[in-house]
Amino acid sequence: MKIESVDFYYLSIPQVLDIGDGSQDALLVRVQADGWIGWGECEASPLVSMASWNCPMSHSACKPVSASVLGQVIETPDDIRRINRLVRTNCLDLLQADHTLSGIDIALWDLLARKRQVPVYQLLGYERAYPKIAYASQLFGDDPQGTLERGRAVAAAGIRAAKFGWGPYGHGSPELDADHVHAAREGLGKDCRLLVDAGTVWFDDVERAAKRLEALNQCDAVWLEEPFVSGALEAYKGLAVRSGRVRLAGGEGCHNFHQAKNMIDYAGIGYVQIDTGRIGGITTALDVVRYAESLGIVFVNHTFTTHLALSASIQPYAGLKHHELCEYPFAPSALGRDLAGTGLSPDANGLVRLPETPGLGIEPDLRALREYQQTVEIQVNGRTVFASTRL
Amino acid sequence: MKIESVDFYYLSIPQVLDIGDGSQDALLVRVQADGWIGWGECEASPLVSMASWNCPMSHSACKPVSASVLGQVIETPDDIRRINRLVRTNCLDLLQADHTLSGIDIALWDLLARKRQVPVYQLLGYERAYPKIAYASQLFGDDPQGTLERGRAVAAAGIRAAKFGWGPYGHGSPELDADHVHAAREGLGKDCRLLVDAGTVWFDDVERAAKRLEALNQCDAVWLEEPFVSGALEAYKGLAVRSGRVRLAGGEGCHNFHQAKNMIDYAGIGYVQIDTGRIGGITTALDVVRYAESLGIVFVNHTFTTHLALSASIQPYAGLKHHELCEYPFAPSALGRDLAGTGLSPDANGLVRLPETPGLGIEPDLRALREYQQTVEIQVNGRTVFASTRL
Repeated sequence: MKIESVDFYYLSIPQVLDIGDGSQDALLVRVQADGWIGWGECEASPLVSMASWNCPMSHSACKPVSASVLGQVIETPDDIRRINRLVRTNCLDLLQADHTLSGIDIALWDLLARKRQVPVYQLLGYERAYPKIAYASQLFGDDPQGTLERGRAVAAAGIRAAKFGWGPYGHGSPELDADHVHAAREGLGKDCRLLVDAGTVWFDDVERAAKRLEALNQCDAVWLEEPFVSGALEAYKGLAVRSGRVRLAGGEGCHNFHQAKNMIDYAGIGYVQIDTGRIGGITTALDVVRYAESLGIVFVNHTFTTHLALSASIQPYAGLKHHELCEYPFAPSALGRDLAGTGLSPDANGLVRLPETPGLGIEPDLRALREYQQTVEIQVNGRTVFASTRL
Repeated sequence: MKIESVDFYYLSIPQVLDIGDGSQDALLVRVQADGWIGWGECEASPLVSMASWNCPMSHSACKPVSASVLGQVIETPDDIRRINRLVRTNCLDLLQADHTLSGIDIALWDLLARKRQVPVYQLLGYERAYPKIAYASQLFGDDPQGTLERGRAVAAAGIRAAKFGWGPYGHGSPELDADHVHAAREGLGKDCRLLVDAGTVWFDDVERAAKRLEALNQCDAVWLEEPFVSGALEAYKGLAVRSGRVRLAGGEGCHNFHQAKNMIDYAGIGYVQIDTGRIGGITTALDVVRYAESLGIVFVNHTFTTHLALSASIQPYAGLKHHELCEYPFAPSALGRDLAGTGLSPDANGLVRLPETPGLGIEPDLRALREYQQTVEIQVNGRTVFASTRL
């Protein structure tokens, strides 16, 4: 069978706020081939990814993404890998293409697994999917008392791991940051795993980051996430050798395999965090999983949007028992809930289980999505090169 | 003064061909502030970069590029650096933004230098601009005889350095590739520097690349460029330690400082090639220049478009005498010539000299460009979020 069509659905809540909530909009992708359908999701900036789908060719290494997708044969997983590689080659100079490819690649795995009537993880070679421990992402409170209260609320909900991040952390004094981390630990109690996310706040300044390590170790934090921008390898390594029991985590910004490999090889991280919707889809995420596992680095998904993206982000490491944490979007926007439901919610033990139904196991609720659709039309010289398909 | 407007002009020849000629289209950027004008150029995919300028915000770290540019104060070089940093922060998850930023950053340097009535290189802290040795980029011939003839033509034109690349190189046997390299050397004669560009053909396969080293050393090639994709650090290093006198060159795909730093730190390259229109503009290119120089790595521009892009790409290393090579687009398209003229053509000794006039020293010929303009209109929910300004 051949890829007959790819449709992009740009969805958004009515008013996107200037806050760190990545579930306020979404780019849903539908691929069709020979009567089969697959769904995927791209991170981020829907309009820009849509523009990359059918932009005019600039030269032989800067073609629209569609040129390497439409009409391609898709019969086996190797076909998906071939298409992934073809997009990278033909879009070498089209930066946004890696994000656009990600949603398409996810949809291709969904489609092929639906056709074969197996979950995607089985198509990836895993016999079973192990449950993952959901960790709840939280903002730090405005002050340590606020952080304490957020920690207590998480613990009361029976959640087994919680991440605090962004907000005031890293912007004030090391002492204030230490107070926040102690408050988080106090609120969570001793049994809930504590993760801390610095949101790249120290750019590549090792000394500023190092002043936070003592409190993190005192409070038994599992990891310090993104002290620096993705790819600041020397800074990561410089901090990693001083971090004690706290390990560094990073990688969500990676948009190809080698960037993730470099974080593993040179940054001294203990956890590599991959967003399947950015790295190039399930194909590329699986490559990172295999490489991380071979070196004893723990793979963790990065996901802050819908349960479709969540399923796609867990499939690549579903079969690895000891890579047990997963980021779970606990408080997504209404769009985030409506797009793909909440079927992957953690159970009473705080565990997330992948669906055992074919594909990604997610069926977008198209009727519910109509109210969120943002229609896009792009014209070049008065000729329409892209127009949204209506839901 | 504050940035009042930024206009993007998408220019293209009538029919873009599926060949490796990056001068077939261009994205010209004009910035205005307090009566002053600056010009820049982005690489690549004009439509996608235009879409990133005013796309709807997705969340706090995925804003349109315009949100960090319009209305910003620009009085000093530090203001440009601040704006560059602000775009990166606010567009952390908007992949295309680095390319869009590049053209804007270039235009800001042009504008500020025009206002101060100095060439950009002086604003960067250099007392003088040293002439650069232009190297001519050539495709390999279809067969070694064709390569030989191209080499002879270059030598006859009095050019002092020539790069052969792409075409059949790397796709056939090592023996055939060796024949091509020997033919190139024979055609050039012994005095013309020979550079070879593999165009990422071996992806990250060190052994396939290594089979080409002997011929390159026999023919006294200066560098082997992009044997692997940008960022394949371990592969680069694995080849570099075996490459003999031939050094590796790479980096044109880098779109931020850390990617270039990583190529310098871990890839074993001898030459770092930076496209000012991709890396984030003159600001970021200058950061790479300083870092490369501190470690004895030679900086070289990557440019395959217009003399505006060429001027912008040379300014960051203009004052470094021993970083003496520069890529010169010898056979650009008609658009490439018409956009900014050919004022930087090499002299009789094969040397390129930067203009000593204010700014980048280039005045785009707007009247000549009208026939190339591609007008773009982007609508979201029927509302125009981007519309080209007519030339």
